[in-house]
Amino acid sequence: MTRYEQLAEQIKQQIEDDIWQVGDRLPSLRESARQSGLSLMTVVQSYQLLESQGWVVARPQSGYFVAKRAPAFAQAKGGLGMHLSENVEINASLFDVLQACKDPAIIPFGSAFPDPSLLVQPKLSKALGAVARRIAPQSAVVNMPPGNEKLRRNISRRYAAQGIHVSPDDIVITAGAMESLSLSLQAVTEPGDWVVIESPAFYGALQAIERLRLKAVAIKTDPQTGIDLDALEEVAGRYDIKACWLMTHFQNPLGGTMPPENKRRLVEILTRHEIALIEDDVYSELWFGSDAPQPAKSLDKDNNFFHCSSFSKCLAPGFRVGWVAAGKHARKVQQLQMMSTVSASMPTQQAIAEYLGQGGYDAHLKKLRQQLEQRQHRMLYAISEYFPSDVKVNCPQGGYFLWLEFEPPFDAVKLYRMALNEQISIAPGSMFSTSDQFNHAFRLNCSFEWNERLDNAMKVLGQLCHVLKKTQG
Amino acid sequence: MTRYEQLAEQIKQQIEDDIWQVGDRLPSLRESARQSGLSLMTVVQSYQLLESQGWVVARPQSGYFVAKRAPAFAQAKGGLGMHLSENVEINASLFDVLQACKDPAIIPFGSAFPDPSLLVQPKLSKALGAVARRIAPQSAVVNMPPGNEKLRRNISRRYAAQGIHVSPDDIVITAGAMESLSLSLQAVTEPGDWVVIESPAFYGALQAIERLRLKAVAIKTDPQTGIDLDALEEVAGRYDIKACWLMTHFQNPLGGTMPPENKRRLVEILTRHEIALIEDDVYSELWFGSDAPQPAKSLDKDNNFFHCSSFSKCLAPGFRVGWVAAGKHARKVQQLQMMSTVSASMPTQQAIAEYLGQGGYDAHLKKLRQQLEQRQHRMLYAISEYFPSDVKVNCPQGGYFLWLEFEPPFDAVKLYRMALNEQISIAPGSMFSTSDQFNHAFRLNCSFEWNERLDNAMKVLGQLCHVLKKTQG
Repeated sequence: MTRYEQLAEQIKQQIEDDIWQVGDRLPSLRESARQSGLSLMTVVQSYQLLESQGWVVARPQSGYFVAKRAPAFAQAKGGLGMHLSENVEINASLFDVLQACKDPAIIPFGSAFPDPSLLVQPKLSKALGAVARRIAPQSAVVNMPPGNEKLRRNISRRYAAQGIHVSPDDIVITAGAMESLSLSLQAVTEPGDWVVIESPAFYGALQAIERLRLKAVAIKTDPQTGIDLDALEEVAGRYDIKACWLMTHFQNPLGGTMPPENKRRLVEILTRHEIALIEDDVYSELWFGSDAPQPAKSLDKDNNFFHCSSFSKCLAPGFRVGWVAAGKHARKVQQLQMMSTVSASMPTQQAIAEYLGQGGYDAHLKKLRQQLEQRQHRMLYAISEYFPSDVKVNCPQGGYFLWLEFEPPFDAVKLYRMALNEQISIAPGSMFSTSDQFNHAFRLNCSFEWNERLDNAMKVLGQLCHVLKKTQG
Repeated sequence: MTRYEQLAEQIKQQIEDDIWQVGDRLPSLRESARQSGLSLMTVVQSYQLLESQGWVVARPQSGYFVAKRAPAFAQAKGGLGMHLSENVEINASLFDVLQACKDPAIIPFGSAFPDPSLLVQPKLSKALGAVARRIAPQSAVVNMPPGNEKLRRNISRRYAAQGIHVSPDDIVITAGAMESLSLSLQAVTEPGDWVVIESPAFYGALQAIERLRLKAVAIKTDPQTGIDLDALEEVAGRYDIKACWLMTHFQNPLGGTMPPENKRRLVEILTRHEIALIEDDVYSELWFGSDAPQPAKSLDKDNNFFHCSSFSKCLAPGFRVGWVAAGKHARKVQQLQMMSTVSASMPTQQAIAEYLGQGGYDAHLKKLRQQLEQRQHRMLYAISEYFPSDVKVNCPQGGYFLWLEFEPPFDAVKLYRMALNEQISIAPGSMFSTSDQFNHAFRLNCSFEWNERLDNAMKVLGQLCHVLKKTQG
């Protein structure tokens, strides 16, 4: 931690311990510099960091004040029990939910993508321009699977910086994480095989399982700590499970992150039963704490795990560049890719390689994380202000989704339809399961910059929840 | 036809009728202009066209001479009978064959891509550069399935120019034709369904069928006229066929093109049996004659056919931009795409849309066709010069593949291995079938610019054929 981060941490502690309370004015910059013995500049940085994280607000001419804290919501519950599906069939309305987010007239709380304006990187545009100027005839061939070598080396180095050894040869560049995940699943399964997923789960997992005619065991997943490991242990003993597809960090849709001890036990169970882990880690760069979380892949001794991620959630969604660290399955994944999309787009692979090589990605990520944390904070306020008070909400430590639950009966699909009439999209809980146990829940994207339009949309959404609860309660 | 094309056609006829024989000097440009009443410029264009097509050679200071014609090879035979596969399993060596073409030290006669230097388009680089300068935050969302609107309109207009009505709404932009084909097949089949393919067929079709656990009826396909329609009629009456995947033009690997009457009968059979056609038409722009061939899709009254193509074979292989005109299945294809790659790469879609909007693509294609015809011609010469004289060869009227057969026993996989030792790749016939009936055949890519290295490679390949025939005959 740098000195300004240390100071911010101290002040945060003081706020949490009620030394400073909501509305209190913090010591002025000069006072604080004198007290701490730090330079004025360092103190300014500290206060700005606290502001970006929503702990304090700056009032012109007056100073910094302790901000209203997001209320402590009741915890969302997530999934219950275990759910077997021999025929995975997902909700056909899924496609409509996703399509609705294309319309700029609609408030995209249902969107799976972060606010695009967060990702604007003039350096990336420049890198693509540079690539465009020197497109070589051979580049199409050279960038065939496993993909651009410079990019694979760069990704490998980013793993190394986290203390994880992944050889560039084990990395396959794909047309986004969705392709990584789907190819990984194909690489270790045959139709009719059993696969473990979370409940609720990313709908892409459900769709991939449906398409590959696999059978799914959906295991209850906690909004805080992720998949239930006792249930996993039991299932692994009872069924011949080929793969386990899950998100260790900022799970979509619940937002939970597996604690390190859970990851260790997860890896132990899977290794003992020779089950391949397909670790969907697309939000891993979007952590709010002080340290990057460590993927379960880092504990993979047998090189039997797939770690799937992409640049779509933190740099360039439209570029369609993702990857999988596929361990011993890398060759098989390449073979499958040759017959699915042949390769990822060449200029976009090259542009990202060029961008990463220039440096500046980590600074971008740091700013992005701060913005996302701040925006999550703002959205939580709006929920406390406008929504029925018995709403249950998770507060993930990363990513940009909030998961909201009401006591059943509450029909979130009906809420989705009513909201769409008001030009607001949400992602109803039923999108994330083949069971009907999440009909009372929905996911909101909290990555957008706050403005009157958004505030009004949240007000409307809150009113709709009130109305629905009255008519259904 | 323009006047210079008419004159070239006349001279071609005269050469074919032996009015001019190999080695004869054609009338000088001035003489010819006087005789024909055309301008000198027009005559120059005619002679250059004839030269580009390999009919004449120019000798400095001497004039134009009738070129040595490619010898008339015995016709390749292609497939025999019908082949049912309930479990499609393709040759695992396929991947090695494709990978070998990545190594610049290896002569890529086995490659599936045209000579990359044929496709260099500075205008396309400029278009990508322009796109890079104005990447908008919203573009990732806007280019989601069905894909960039401008690009879809452009493709629609190119269909219209051929007299084919395809609405931009029925077009889905994909990450290359391989994805188009695979999504189309998924859209109309369930595991266990029967699908008709050609024998031999593009290995991508075999792989997609394997992956989707479909059952295949491979129908014998003529190197000249394509799939056997009597056999198709019989199969369609006997099995519950869901889809027919074939290439109407410059079929890969044989090179055949279905005559218009065959296409009409094909469409009649499929329509009567309610079988969806998946028309793989990736080489359609690479015709050598005077007119573009008309896809079977143009006869589709029920909007039940898929027409799949891409920009990978004639403009930008590395961009991974293709499309499918999916008729009434367009929505289903989009749904499947959202769960496979989400969308095609945004900057490359936009760059191609921009490039097409500027004009110049047709001029590029015209030149490309001439070069490919000339290079095919040159390769045929080399075969006649270096290969055993009983080789059977097709001479496709488009594309860039030659299909060679020897009388069995002739082990083309062995030839492939021997050639690879000499740094030459070929595509053995076994890659294109689940049966062993093409072990005596192989495919050569004839798109490369002739030079000493290529000439030497063909000489070595011819010698290896001689050796193999001796040891196996």
